[in-house]
Amino acid sequence: MNPVEIIIKKRNGIELDSNEIKFIVQGFLEGSITDYQMSAFLMSVYFTGMTSSETSTLTEIMLHSGEVLDLSSVSGIKVDKHSTGGVGDKVSLIIAPIVASVGIPVPMISGRGLGHSGGTLDKLESIPGFRTELSVADYKQSLQKIGAVLIGQTKEIAPADKKIYALRDVTGTVESIPLICASIMSKKLAEGIDGLVLDVKTGVGAFMKTLEDSERLASGLKAISEAFNKKTIAFITAMDQPLGYAVGNWLEVAESIECLKEKEVKDLMEVCHNLAGAMIFLGGKASSIEKGIETSRKQIENGNAYKKFLEITENQGGDISFLEDLKKYPKSKNSVTVKAKHSGYIDSINAFEIGMAGIELGAGRMKHDDVIDPKAGLQFTKKVGDRVVSDEIIVTLFTDKNDFSDTVNRVESSIKISECVPVKTEMIRKIIT
Amino acid sequence: MNPVEIIIKKRNGIELDSNEIKFIVQGFLEGSITDYQMSAFLMSVYFTGMTSSETSTLTEIMLHSGEVLDLSSVSGIKVDKHSTGGVGDKVSLIIAPIVASVGIPVPMISGRGLGHSGGTLDKLESIPGFRTELSVADYKQSLQKIGAVLIGQTKEIAPADKKIYALRDVTGTVESIPLICASIMSKKLAEGIDGLVLDVKTGVGAFMKTLEDSERLASGLKAISEAFNKKTIAFITAMDQPLGYAVGNWLEVAESIECLKEKEVKDLMEVCHNLAGAMIFLGGKASSIEKGIETSRKQIENGNAYKKFLEITENQGGDISFLEDLKKYPKSKNSVTVKAKHSGYIDSINAFEIGMAGIELGAGRMKHDDVIDPKAGLQFTKKVGDRVVSDEIIVTLFTDKNDFSDTVNRVESSIKISECVPVKTEMIRKIIT
Repeated sequence: MNPVEIIIKKRNGIELDSNEIKFIVQGFLEGSITDYQMSAFLMSVYFTGMTSSETSTLTEIMLHSGEVLDLSSVSGIKVDKHSTGGVGDKVSLIIAPIVASVGIPVPMISGRGLGHSGGTLDKLESIPGFRTELSVADYKQSLQKIGAVLIGQTKEIAPADKKIYALRDVTGTVESIPLICASIMSKKLAEGIDGLVLDVKTGVGAFMKTLEDSERLASGLKAISEAFNKKTIAFITAMDQPLGYAVGNWLEVAESIECLKEKEVKDLMEVCHNLAGAMIFLGGKASSIEKGIETSRKQIENGNAYKKFLEITENQGGDISFLEDLKKYPKSKNSVTVKAKHSGYIDSINAFEIGMAGIELGAGRMKHDDVIDPKAGLQFTKKVGDRVVSDEIIVTLFTDKNDFSDTVNRVESSIKISECVPVKTEMIRKIIT
Repeated sequence: MNPVEIIIKKRNGIELDSNEIKFIVQGFLEGSITDYQMSAFLMSVYFTGMTSSETSTLTEIMLHSGEVLDLSSVSGIKVDKHSTGGVGDKVSLIIAPIVASVGIPVPMISGRGLGHSGGTLDKLESIPGFRTELSVADYKQSLQKIGAVLIGQTKEIAPADKKIYALRDVTGTVESIPLICASIMSKKLAEGIDGLVLDVKTGVGAFMKTLEDSERLASGLKAISEAFNKKTIAFITAMDQPLGYAVGNWLEVAESIECLKEKEVKDLMEVCHNLAGAMIFLGGKASSIEKGIETSRKQIENGNAYKKFLEITENQGGDISFLEDLKKYPKSKNSVTVKAKHSGYIDSINAFEIGMAGIELGAGRMKHDDVIDPKAGLQFTKKVGDRVVSDEIIVTLFTDKNDFSDTVNRVESSIKISECVPVKTEMIRKIIT
């Protein structure tokens, strides 16, 4: 086989067979295909796409480039959730204990925040002592014992994804749905799951800004997952304003704890109960998503989900005293409020801008090696649709940094107040079963 | 400036400014832009194209990466011709002496054959002793003294083109009109010309198979040439069957000599007189292309063009006794004829297939370092539109190779004979002045 001929075939929009994809991708991993040929190939994929069969082949190569966990020793139908990332998205922290508390094993491998969107690992690590690096043996043992374990991607999982992603990152080939799908799914499939719930965000704070693109991504992810015989349900959920009231690592943990203790944060809990309901359905503990949602609500009301979160935290070395007494956590040096300039209704809060403001306050990363301040972030008191009077506090910013006037301006201009009540947007835009 | 942002901008189809193009291309030449980023950039250009302003900037960078000849010491309006390459295309050999014989300096830097199409240098070098490597001083002196000089590209001319082309060749990014235009024009503009006649071939034996693509290429080349203040006329000419009767290096020299001595090879001489006419017009020795064509015919009839070819050959070390007595040249070990299987009219002769057959016989190259047999090739006795009776010879193959049965089959199946007289195709498809 000739690499140039395969690049040209892809460039001309002709479907490659699995041997040709293997030749290119395997060759790249082994070094026989050069990085400049791989980057031409990836750019061709950006322009001409990949069929679901091509994407499955790519995923399979990347999946088997590393360790694929075997969780057959853990009893039960193992179900995970994957989100494409958003602002204030602490859903994993709430639903992992909900689902585990009904006896469904939740093996959750999460990522770190990069750019405007946060990462579950960073949030968990804001809990003093919480360890997200476990050995495979500890991982399995914890899953069996506690029912849920939340860790980071190990070096052993899908190393091909790392190598290909590093090249995409510097060659302008990140924004390709088949490449995104293969990257996400090669890591998720390595977890040893039986079922998967996908949360594809849509809107200004999401990776995919339009419903159409989000649907393409959701369908692509679902197709691969099902090609690997995983039961899969995909949700498309709104990411226009931040999810819930808190943005920032510890602030989001605290909000999660409050929600687990029955605080009714409407947009956040609507997403949580839907996703948890679908996981409970896939895990065989409910006859439908709707029944699963009922169960999910029950696990909050009866306190089992909250107790499970304490168990998970304790099991991974976290100090639960901070969860039991949220006020115990250290405070940021500085706090500043953003107030309503005039009375009216909050019309929009730009989630992307809030995410970027979070980075400026110290809550996120622009580069992989940026250091995070777990205390930093934004705590909203008003959200879209709320009535505000002039000078009323909308959000409080927390940071240890001393110069944050630009960030205050950024937050101010990301919030629009209108005379009229804004049109209510649905949180659950679509469920693809 | 950030290379990834520029790649993404190009990928998204946004016009780059000249600083951005310089940053990428200059950076690639100097090593600060990696080859994998350059290949992603080139593939983006393949898909989204370049405006004429972008292409001019790219050409300028490549042009000034090397030596730009200063021919101001040579009097007269210096005019060259460039062809995109075809099969049996010996036009340069005929028109360089025609145009030089009317007192217009013709500084012609030519290439070698690669793939199915031949190269002027290889044809010239089939003349014993003919040297195509001259120093810049000899080049200028010859041009002043003889009026025409035919050499190969020196290392000093457009080295950037070499580096970029080498990457395009292995990354599937050759077939991009702006990249082709910049590659061709950076070399042509380095010659020190004042005017340029372009011969863009169209058809099955051409790089561009469709009239539409050929027009796009012709317009692109002309736009750059004019952006650099060169008077330019572009022709689009037919390349469906081989041009003339001979294909193969010495065979084509011999046919050229015959044509310079008044043999009327219709399709070939129609192209030659048109291109030479345009060169004579651009060189200020005729008031129109038509008047230039009249002059061109006259230079054949009065024997001046033939004499000029002998002068050029002698000046570059060639042994003119072979030109004066064409039979003196060594013959191929083997020759075999392809005959008409049945009576009828020759409907088509696939120029691409004939070019590939030429390679198999030893007349061309598949790789840069393949060695050429100057004697090898094909000599047609019939062309499209000619009446043939069963068993009449259509073409004779010459080669030193012993196994050529596959080539005979290839040639046989590239010739179609029909009951009806085929529709006559025009040689000059379009003139863009």
